[in-house]
Amino acid sequence: MTKEKDNVKIIPLGGTNEIGKNMTVVEYKDEIIVVDSGLKFPDDDMLGIDVVIPDVSYLVKNKDRIKGIFITHGHEDHIGALPYVLKQVNVPVYATKLTAALINLKLTEHRIQDVVTVNIVKAKDTIKLEKMSVEFIKVNHSIADSCALAIHTPLGAVIHTGDFKVDFTPVDGEVIDLQRFAELGKRGVLALLCDSTNVEREGYTISESSVGESFKRIFHGVRGRIIISTFASNVHRIQQIIEAGVAQGRKIAVSGRSMENIIPIALDLGYLSVDEKHLISIDDIKKYPDNQVLIITTGSQGEPMAALSRMANNMHRKIQVKPGDTVVFSSSPIPGNEKPIFRTIDRLSKLGAEVVYGKLESIHVSGHACKEEIKLIHTLTRPKHLVPLHGEFRMLKEHRDLAIKMGMNPSSIVLPENGDVIEVHRRGIKKTGTVNSGHVLIDGLGVGDVGRIVLRDRKHLSEDGIITVVVTMDKESASVVAGPDIITRGFVYVKEAEALMESSRKVVAQALYECEDKQITDWNVLKNIIKDTLKNHLYEKTMRRPMILPIIMEV
Amino acid sequence: MTKEKDNVKIIPLGGTNEIGKNMTVVEYKDEIIVVDSGLKFPDDDMLGIDVVIPDVSYLVKNKDRIKGIFITHGHEDHIGALPYVLKQVNVPVYATKLTAALINLKLTEHRIQDVVTVNIVKAKDTIKLEKMSVEFIKVNHSIADSCALAIHTPLGAVIHTGDFKVDFTPVDGEVIDLQRFAELGKRGVLALLCDSTNVEREGYTISESSVGESFKRIFHGVRGRIIISTFASNVHRIQQIIEAGVAQGRKIAVSGRSMENIIPIALDLGYLSVDEKHLISIDDIKKYPDNQVLIITTGSQGEPMAALSRMANNMHRKIQVKPGDTVVFSSSPIPGNEKPIFRTIDRLSKLGAEVVYGKLESIHVSGHACKEEIKLIHTLTRPKHLVPLHGEFRMLKEHRDLAIKMGMNPSSIVLPENGDVIEVHRRGIKKTGTVNSGHVLIDGLGVGDVGRIVLRDRKHLSEDGIITVVVTMDKESASVVAGPDIITRGFVYVKEAEALMESSRKVVAQALYECEDKQITDWNVLKNIIKDTLKNHLYEKTMRRPMILPIIMEV
Repeated sequence: MTKEKDNVKIIPLGGTNEIGKNMTVVEYKDEIIVVDSGLKFPDDDMLGIDVVIPDVSYLVKNKDRIKGIFITHGHEDHIGALPYVLKQVNVPVYATKLTAALINLKLTEHRIQDVVTVNIVKAKDTIKLEKMSVEFIKVNHSIADSCALAIHTPLGAVIHTGDFKVDFTPVDGEVIDLQRFAELGKRGVLALLCDSTNVEREGYTISESSVGESFKRIFHGVRGRIIISTFASNVHRIQQIIEAGVAQGRKIAVSGRSMENIIPIALDLGYLSVDEKHLISIDDIKKYPDNQVLIITTGSQGEPMAALSRMANNMHRKIQVKPGDTVVFSSSPIPGNEKPIFRTIDRLSKLGAEVVYGKLESIHVSGHACKEEIKLIHTLTRPKHLVPLHGEFRMLKEHRDLAIKMGMNPSSIVLPENGDVIEVHRRGIKKTGTVNSGHVLIDGLGVGDVGRIVLRDRKHLSEDGIITVVVTMDKESASVVAGPDIITRGFVYVKEAEALMESSRKVVAQALYECEDKQITDWNVLKNIIKDTLKNHLYEKTMRRPMILPIIMEV
Repeated sequence: MTKEKDNVKIIPLGGTNEIGKNMTVVEYKDEIIVVDSGLKFPDDDMLGIDVVIPDVSYLVKNKDRIKGIFITHGHEDHIGALPYVLKQVNVPVYATKLTAALINLKLTEHRIQDVVTVNIVKAKDTIKLEKMSVEFIKVNHSIADSCALAIHTPLGAVIHTGDFKVDFTPVDGEVIDLQRFAELGKRGVLALLCDSTNVEREGYTISESSVGESFKRIFHGVRGRIIISTFASNVHRIQQIIEAGVAQGRKIAVSGRSMENIIPIALDLGYLSVDEKHLISIDDIKKYPDNQVLIITTGSQGEPMAALSRMANNMHRKIQVKPGDTVVFSSSPIPGNEKPIFRTIDRLSKLGAEVVYGKLESIHVSGHACKEEIKLIHTLTRPKHLVPLHGEFRMLKEHRDLAIKMGMNPSSIVLPENGDVIEVHRRGIKKTGTVNSGHVLIDGLGVGDVGRIVLRDRKHLSEDGIITVVVTMDKESASVVAGPDIITRGFVYVKEAEALMESSRKVVAQALYECEDKQITDWNVLKNIIKDTLKNHLYEKTMRRPMILPIIMEV
């Protein structure tokens, strides 16, 4: 083996130049490990798509070399693609207790819980493989039980921060293991793969425990019910909501599927601690006076089917929002969700609720490190090389600029793109190639069969609808036997546009007669003539361009 | 006439419980005036819709009583519906000079400039009608030549603020006419109809002229080209951009249709003042060194067809963004536009440009009054009654709360909804009825023919596409002559799903045979059987629910 080949390969398959679907491959010789396996939610132009996952054809091709998938924490953008990936590449999964519980929920939903091995680890554990070993290191984040990974290779440690923040006063008392980062730094870190989500923000992210203080302040003096919405996976937030509610003598009820899934698990595993006497069923809220009720619910992002949206639309089966209720959004909008969130707020206001949201009150803090925290991690780990991860291009670039300002050599930093093969040697880092990568669009059961053509058609259909022209022709004489019939959906409401339909039938019939005169017998030519004739006619009459689908039935 | 009837009616037809499509009717006895005639842009669920305008069937029904449409300023949400409305109700329009010029652009586009009368007025002018008179009062806003209206009636003045802010150091030196508001207040204001857009924000809106200072700071030391994007109608912003650029020895070029439309008009009318020697054609930018070029452009909201988006996508015919370029977004995102804006920023960064955006630099200020300014107007005008306008429900409510805190009696305030008939007497205000109101959706030429069914179909089509099943049947025997043929769009890519298409054909054929056996001859029954059979088959195979369109051709 040449010296040249003694390198560690880093291949991001997701999470660079995007927020979401995080997945990074780390390779040493014939050994592959995968960090995280996340999904992201579709962009506006991905019509009808449920979720988006990374293209893992590289993993499928190299499946025999993969030693495991190591999960940093239990958020969707880190675990959401696991069921789809494991169906193609069944390798062991390693995760901490809460993360593993959330993974198992997913595997059960996909009915593969019995064929997949999920190994539960804890912070400070190290999984020894043949050539590499993977160490879990405690970090703070907006979900409990989050870890960074130190991937120990013969060339030095590769640190993957996962998602992190530095919280000196976390709700569970467990501060990020800065000492271990320092120790690794002293020994020499080959490369730092680091979260860039909040790198554009100055200063430090505020401690999660500060939110508890806000809750106490906001809840103080509220005489009606309190309905409070946050991310279901943020158990520390939920802990603080419960404590602030209980301190006021309120009973706690829960509404919303993901909340109802996660809270029992968190209670069971000890991530939430609350005397059961304070918990009541949502069915029992009417048995208590309003000032003794607090409801924790989902829908802080305005998701149309979530419990809070159903309350706002007066379609929740068990909770009717009324004057006197106080609704709290303990969240900030994920870009793109602003409109549905404000719609929800407005509808709740209209029902008479006081709605508390936005930046006026510190009722939400981020889970990601701001500039100063990122600098702290750089300082402690003093990495030889840097690969900024988890961020849009502008964030990765800002992260690079930050590292250069701290004294790092620009040649020691690679701005990655999904699919890049990044080789790290003891003294150097470079891109040496690419592997397949990209978006795999999941719609229903089908994996990957919604491609560009289908999306383009959906977009066309969504804008002006479709008009189908059917005509039955005699095979021999190429003359019209029946039709043309015109059927339309999403274009105009036919009852209001009878004249337009009638004129459309006429221009098509006329075109067909002319074709018969000219003895045109090629169905494709005929279809194109129908299409063009109708297109021009409709554009002239309506300035719209519906999709036109000419169908010739031959008898 | 009874005393009861001596009232002023206020009927908002748009702009309440929404941002946009502003339009308010003010009536005294048989005299009607209309304030503004705006559009709004479609919500995400209004697929394929170009713009949304108010339902003006009330105006059509009462067209003989309308004395004119009085326009407060030239923004789309105040003038955009004018061409559509004037085609139905051709009454005189009154507007200040710049506003009138922008209106005329629109009328020309719709080819009705010769049949409509647009009267040009100036601040302090009063238009005398038979029973009412309408006075234009100078206000500050993010477009020049903005006015509030004092509608003088025998019962007192109704003040409609239009959109406003209080700018003590405006770019053109013309401060809002606070003295006139005070004077009217002393004489007695019957009702205040007031902008609520920024009522949720504490304090004062910053002066437009502060943005000029930021430009100078940001431009300082930039060695490459400067490309700066803002709202085309904000001529004061453009004035400041030009001044900051010229001070640095830069030539000014313009790209983007609305910019190219408005700037010559603003120059011509004197709203922009610049020595012509500083202006160059976009075709000539390459004749100057990069540090002598400044390009003003459109697209600050990430609009997909705007000049800046085309630059970001490397599809602009005349400008290629390159390393060294500095791109400035002098704007803040309108809720809902965050994703396309960030996409544009990322693409520009990737092309190597420095992108300046967001809250770090004060490169944009709002055009709307914050809490303290609204309080100032209340204090000066001391209205007997208040109708908060221009805002979502939560804003109108916040405005009401603000007025109550200032000592107003809750019974003197009406929270309006579009279509409410609000009667104001000397000593009292109340809702007494409603008129038709709502959204009219414009798609292409058609006005109002895109209704709920069409939108529902477009949504369905956009999510899972369509599958058309055509079968030719013999009229007499009800037996299949040809088909079933299956054609699909936006569902699956047929070449990758041949097996699915084949199995679909088979289940439909099978169902048709069974119908023939059972001698089912009702085409509607047959269509439903085809639909259900195929629906179940496809859901089982794909978990998707495309629209199914069964077509029977009879021969």
